Amino acid sequence: MDEFVLIDQFFAGRGVCRDDVRLGIGDDAAVTRCDDGFELVIATDTICEGTHFLPGTPPHVLGYRCLAVTLSDLAAMGAEPTWCTPALSLPEAEPDWVRRFADGFFTIADRFSTMLIGGDTVCGPLAMTVTVHGRIKQGQAICRDGAREGDLIYVTGIPGQAAAGLRALRESGAMADTGSDQVRSFWYPQPRVMEGRALVGLATAMSDVSDGLLADTSRLLAVSGLGAQMDIVDLPLDAVGTDDAPELALNGGDDYELCFCIPPDRRLELERLVADWPCPVTRIGTAQRNADIVWLIDGKPCNTVAGQFKHFS
Amino acid sequence: MDEFVLIDQFFAGRGVCRDDVRLGIGDDAAVTRCDDGFELVIATDTICEGTHFLPGTPPHVLGYRCLAVTLSDLAAMGAEPTWCTPALSLPEAEPDWVRRFADGFFTIADRFSTMLIGGDTVCGPLAMTVTVHGRIKQGQAICRDGAREGDLIYVTGIPGQAAAGLRALRESGAMADTGSDQVRSFWYPQPRVMEGRALVGLATAMSDVSDGLLADTSRLLAVSGLGAQMDIVDLPLDAVGTDDAPELALNGGDDYELCFCIPPDRRLELERLVADWPCPVTRIGTAQRNADIVWLIDGKPCNTVAGQFKHFS
Repeated sequence: MDEFVLIDQFFAGRGVCRDDVRLGIGDDAAVTRCDDGFELVIATDTICEGTHFLPGTPPHVLGYRCLAVTLSDLAAMGAEPTWCTPALSLPEAEPDWVRRFADGFFTIADRFSTMLIGGDTVCGPLAMTVTVHGRIKQGQAICRDGAREGDLIYVTGIPGQAAAGLRALRESGAMADTGSDQVRSFWYPQPRVMEGRALVGLATAMSDVSDGLLADTSRLLAVSGLGAQMDIVDLPLDAVGTDDAPELALNGGDDYELCFCIPPDRRLELERLVADWPCPVTRIGTAQRNADIVWLIDGKPCNTVAGQFKHFS
Repeated sequence: MDEFVLIDQFFAGRGVCRDDVRLGIGDDAAVTRCDDGFELVIATDTICEGTHFLPGTPPHVLGYRCLAVTLSDLAAMGAEPTWCTPALSLPEAEPDWVRRFADGFFTIADRFSTMLIGGDTVCGPLAMTVTVHGRIKQGQAICRDGAREGDLIYVTGIPGQAAAGLRALRESGAMADTGSDQVRSFWYPQPRVMEGRALVGLATAMSDVSDGLLADTSRLLAVSGLGAQMDIVDLPLDAVGTDDAPELALNGGDDYELCFCIPPDRRLELERLVADWPCPVTRIGTAQRNADIVWLIDGKPCNTVAGQFKHFS
């Protein structure tokens, strides 16, 4: 089975169509339109075997996950997803594997009305790079550097749960235990696209949490030139289901949740907004003028130097 | 050296800046603007070690090549490149390697005024996926399916030369012989961006030639519902420098040249246009209503079934 057959059979003509796409799959490049008054939002993410997922991960999971993690970047800008171009590197083109991969991919592409407009398929080590495009009204993107002193800091979902799922998969040495909430949240992250869009005009700064709360909130506050006092006491850590839930929440990674800041006088507005959301939203700190970020666990400052997720470390 | 240091040191703040980029590297996603009256053109290509380049290929070559091959897709639409997002998978982050890779990348990014606006860097097998964005006036993109009966078919450059270079590298078992025109054309393909843009309004159909003349012209004509009589007698095959130059031109691949059609009554206009181009432009055939494509070598039909480049074959 060659590249063209594979694309025709499992990808071409599938998924949502959008009328801002003039030319999709099948030419040298795609041609699209950006409506007046909107800006484009563009993100790229790679996941590869061994680094981002375990050997033997089901193809449906990979198809879902490679797009989900990139959509999370768009969510963190408050953008509406529009189009995507996945690049798949596969050791072999086994039709059943590709079919299940495509099923996972279109599950999430369709959920977020993201149209497949192109991409590439090559023979190589198992890896996926997805570029997603989105749109946002001019000047409305929620950047990382907009936090102000006194802003309240929130996070969505259950940080640490995905890391607990990854550990369970590693320890089981196989794809066992796959029905648990922990494994499901690692395999099928829920990009907070609707939530991110709803925060436009309210959040002063936002980022997604993929390398652990500690690393990602530190970066968010650093680019805003702020420190913070952080306290994870209110996080739903019971749902992480491990004794070291605080460490997993701080350092675990793979959450694909949103961390954002709002002005303190808009707290009630936020609380009304999030009442309908499908995920918990927890206040975890307050931005402060001093340059340090102090994390409290059970009211006591904790050592946060060790254990940050770093590629190539 | 972690991902963030690596990006900061060798990529961030480097290369051309464009005023249609509102937010570049450093946030969750990039934010850009598409001017009124223009459409976006988007292409993605992956190159990975073993499939698309030999182990030991110099990093400067890889940095150049991963962007060049994707720019070739934009060239084939007649588009003007604007932004790019490379995703790099590296087994290790060796600073000198990354520095030389970045030098190669910016050599071509700057040549075509393509701004680096984001991307990803992960630890994994050596591979690069680049998504490039471009723009074109509304409705002006040159698609593959516009060829008409009687159109004259042309190709730029010296098809087969890059394939001869790849073979020389393979046979030398090392990175020897690197000063030859053949190796240089394999390592440093020249995306025909200016040439593609100049053909807007003139070419009826266009594609880039990356899998060999035979496969790519067949696809171009097939989507236009046409056959053709093709003759490679006028190609500058001496420059390929091998006894089997015709076979390399037809089946070799890695040319990254443009194959395009023009109406027969615009032949003089084309000849005047290409007189200034830095590459040869050769007429290789005429589109015909019948469904077959007949290739002639030395005036005799040749067998073109075998030897087409296919991924996964």
